[in-house]
Amino acid sequence: MGRVSGHHQPQSSPSSAPADVAYLRSVLPSTTEDAFFEYLSTLDASEVTVSAVPEGSVVFARVPFLQVKGPLLVVQLLETMLLCLVNYASLVATNAARFRLLAGPDVKLMEMGLRCAQGPDGALSASKYSYIGGFDSTSNVLAGKLYDIPVRGTIAHSFIMSFTSLEEVQPRELLPRAGGDPVDLLALAMAWLQRVCELLQTPPERANRGELAAFVSYAITFPSDFQGLLDTYCVRRSGLPNFCAVALALQQLGYRAIGVRLDSGDLAQQSKEIRRVLRACGAHFQVPWFETIPIAVSNDISEQSLEEFIREGSEIDMIGIGTNLVTCPLQPSLGCVYKLVEVNGSPCLKLTEDEEKMTIPGTKMIYRLYDAAGHPFMDLMALEEEPSPRAGQELVVRVLGQLGETSKVVPTTVEPLHHTYFRDGQVCEPLPSLTEVRTHAQVSLSILSPAHRRLHDPQPYPVAVTEKLHQLLTTLQQASQ
Amino acid sequence: MGRVSGHHQPQSSPSSAPADVAYLRSVLPSTTEDAFFEYLSTLDASEVTVSAVPEGSVVFARVPFLQVKGPLLVVQLLETMLLCLVNYASLVATNAARFRLLAGPDVKLMEMGLRCAQGPDGALSASKYSYIGGFDSTSNVLAGKLYDIPVRGTIAHSFIMSFTSLEEVQPRELLPRAGGDPVDLLALAMAWLQRVCELLQTPPERANRGELAAFVSYAITFPSDFQGLLDTYCVRRSGLPNFCAVALALQQLGYRAIGVRLDSGDLAQQSKEIRRVLRACGAHFQVPWFETIPIAVSNDISEQSLEEFIREGSEIDMIGIGTNLVTCPLQPSLGCVYKLVEVNGSPCLKLTEDEEKMTIPGTKMIYRLYDAAGHPFMDLMALEEEPSPRAGQELVVRVLGQLGETSKVVPTTVEPLHHTYFRDGQVCEPLPSLTEVRTHAQVSLSILSPAHRRLHDPQPYPVAVTEKLHQLLTTLQQASQ
Repeated sequence: MGRVSGHHQPQSSPSSAPADVAYLRSVLPSTTEDAFFEYLSTLDASEVTVSAVPEGSVVFARVPFLQVKGPLLVVQLLETMLLCLVNYASLVATNAARFRLLAGPDVKLMEMGLRCAQGPDGALSASKYSYIGGFDSTSNVLAGKLYDIPVRGTIAHSFIMSFTSLEEVQPRELLPRAGGDPVDLLALAMAWLQRVCELLQTPPERANRGELAAFVSYAITFPSDFQGLLDTYCVRRSGLPNFCAVALALQQLGYRAIGVRLDSGDLAQQSKEIRRVLRACGAHFQVPWFETIPIAVSNDISEQSLEEFIREGSEIDMIGIGTNLVTCPLQPSLGCVYKLVEVNGSPCLKLTEDEEKMTIPGTKMIYRLYDAAGHPFMDLMALEEEPSPRAGQELVVRVLGQLGETSKVVPTTVEPLHHTYFRDGQVCEPLPSLTEVRTHAQVSLSILSPAHRRLHDPQPYPVAVTEKLHQLLTTLQQASQ
Repeated sequence: MGRVSGHHQPQSSPSSAPADVAYLRSVLPSTTEDAFFEYLSTLDASEVTVSAVPEGSVVFARVPFLQVKGPLLVVQLLETMLLCLVNYASLVATNAARFRLLAGPDVKLMEMGLRCAQGPDGALSASKYSYIGGFDSTSNVLAGKLYDIPVRGTIAHSFIMSFTSLEEVQPRELLPRAGGDPVDLLALAMAWLQRVCELLQTPPERANRGELAAFVSYAITFPSDFQGLLDTYCVRRSGLPNFCAVALALQQLGYRAIGVRLDSGDLAQQSKEIRRVLRACGAHFQVPWFETIPIAVSNDISEQSLEEFIREGSEIDMIGIGTNLVTCPLQPSLGCVYKLVEVNGSPCLKLTEDEEKMTIPGTKMIYRLYDAAGHPFMDLMALEEEPSPRAGQELVVRVLGQLGETSKVVPTTVEPLHHTYFRDGQVCEPLPSLTEVRTHAQVSLSILSPAHRRLHDPQPYPVAVTEKLHQLLTTLQQASQ
């Protein structure tokens, strides 16, 4: 598959701050002319124009994400910053999209990567672009606040471990949802624990009392949002009976528990056992919704974990993914490059022996060609002055990687891929909201043909050049021999 | 080997901002009591105490980096942020230290990871902690400005490609270093190019004119800091002759070129060829310093690249490392955990079947034990109330991983590893500067025994507990069965 593009949104372009110029003066050679620093202090992006694929678009190798025009010095200064803004954003959005494709549309995916990201701000980038790639929520509360991403978390092991006995539950009373007198939820849960343990044929004394105290305390505080973390002690003999007891006590008072979470062991297998127990409780105690209680899992989840869940047939409804999402261990970096393709109106070329690394010269128009089924089947680069390809019209093209031969294609639809977002120092097209970008990413992925979208051994997506562009390439190559 | 610890420096601890509390109110269940939000708005770190290993210390698995004491709610809120601050910082400092160990003390290491880091701020963390781990400089100018890290960069391919002919060199004159009339540096370099090409037996017309124009322009601007990027075109026939020509022209005016850089191909092999050419020029034109011109390399350098350089015997003096430094592909994350070890004065334990994951209960003192040669040979955890082990005195300990048996050791020196840096909401010990931390990291690494320090198959470093701490562990384990 391709990559989901992510760009930071351009800010306004103030000219260089005096402190920055002073710093540069302190590190540049003493022979540097004063006029240069004066020039730097007036530097801005007022002559820069940036066109780009819409944020969230699927982009294939060799197709430019961005085209940047402007004074050479200014656009060279932008190189590393633009690469920094595009590379990780696109990498993690793509990684998130892969998890989403594997998980299917219904499983909830929670980003939980803060602790392994490159510091607090690296983590914010991770949260934002994971959301664009198709995650549903983040555990990073600051990312929620700054970007309006839904925040989700669960109860912590240390919260449960901080309780050691039932005496620690203070207060014990909860008002029924429909009103009425407060009820001792602890006593009610204790009574339910007996009935649950009887049903499950597990000894009630094996259900950890500290854990029960923690669950009851949590339920009294958040009666409509009770979630049980099951694996601080034994899941089968402690976590699950304690959860069911508290959830059934809450149910008696009109509240529904919202889920359980597992953080260790064989997650797929355990999810099936938990579902059986929830189903058994639901049937026995006549609480039909009980069997649909969402099961959330975490614990170093990777693409491979998701594939195992599918293979084993799990009952998992929510997945929390941290390290393997934000550090992208399958490919820890995206190596976009920023190359000079035209200077003073003349297209140029960096020669290389590796055709795969060859730049495509000149200012280009980029078109995405769609087939009759609505799938994109080729991206085509053309010279700016060439007429746009037209729907239904045959095109003669050369596919990168097989430049020696021509191909003929007839697109059903033609879409110009780049939009000009920034012209003469100003944002000139409304920038989409985060939600719009997220939706665009999902749509871009969904219209790919299955052969291009599959994660393993996808069919290579052809990227082609027009005959005119190919002629320019050949001329420049010969000129620089 | 162990890991180099890195902590962000604690800031002052303001209580929660009203906007943060308002945001939490908007996302927490509507049943949450008002008193909780009022409590949150008064929350601060005034009851928190943090002890830690000095920043830059080598830390081994199972030894706590930090011990945090305070109200349970507050220290639980700190969990993810502390892990985020410690994990990546320590990971990238460790990765940098591995590169430093491989490169040896004399090779200059330049961090160049901005474009592949997790956004601009992730990149700043990468620069700071790579410097701590032993790098000499960064290409991230903002990191240089903020943290006072030396900045280094080189000429870019796009700068060279932006020149196509000698006419573009404006101005052409340079004043000799010792004063006098301005000299046409371009004419001088052209004359030297003839002589260099004759010596190297390469046709002068193959030396790219755009490249020569770029070199001359750069040299006129920075005559005392001229560096040549050799591989925009053919290194042997263009980059190297053009560089030597300009450097010899500069030399004639009293200036010394500061280096060359290679960014593609077989770097070790080419460095040897380049050194031969520099030596030949130095001898033939009687410029002795020419043969010591530093050779810098870049291009996806990894640990494996450094091992190849050593194996092939290279002439490389400076190495720029980006992606493989900041994304740590050999291990993209460091999985530190934050565990509850004592609550209300009682030590506690999270049971697990995996002895490697077992937490060590209670507030602990941690001692590093040194042998007579000055190498640390064991880290020892003891209960806070136990007397400190004394130099020269035999200790009975149990090594983690072999808890079933006791060992006897006699340390020559004993060092308490943790210092209290933050007490009751205040930094209570002077925090070291970045340079001091960097020095401490190099010293910590240098005193490791070679068996513990080697990168491949290092000897495991023993981490032990005292008999008393072992008894506590056993008691708690039995109690929770």
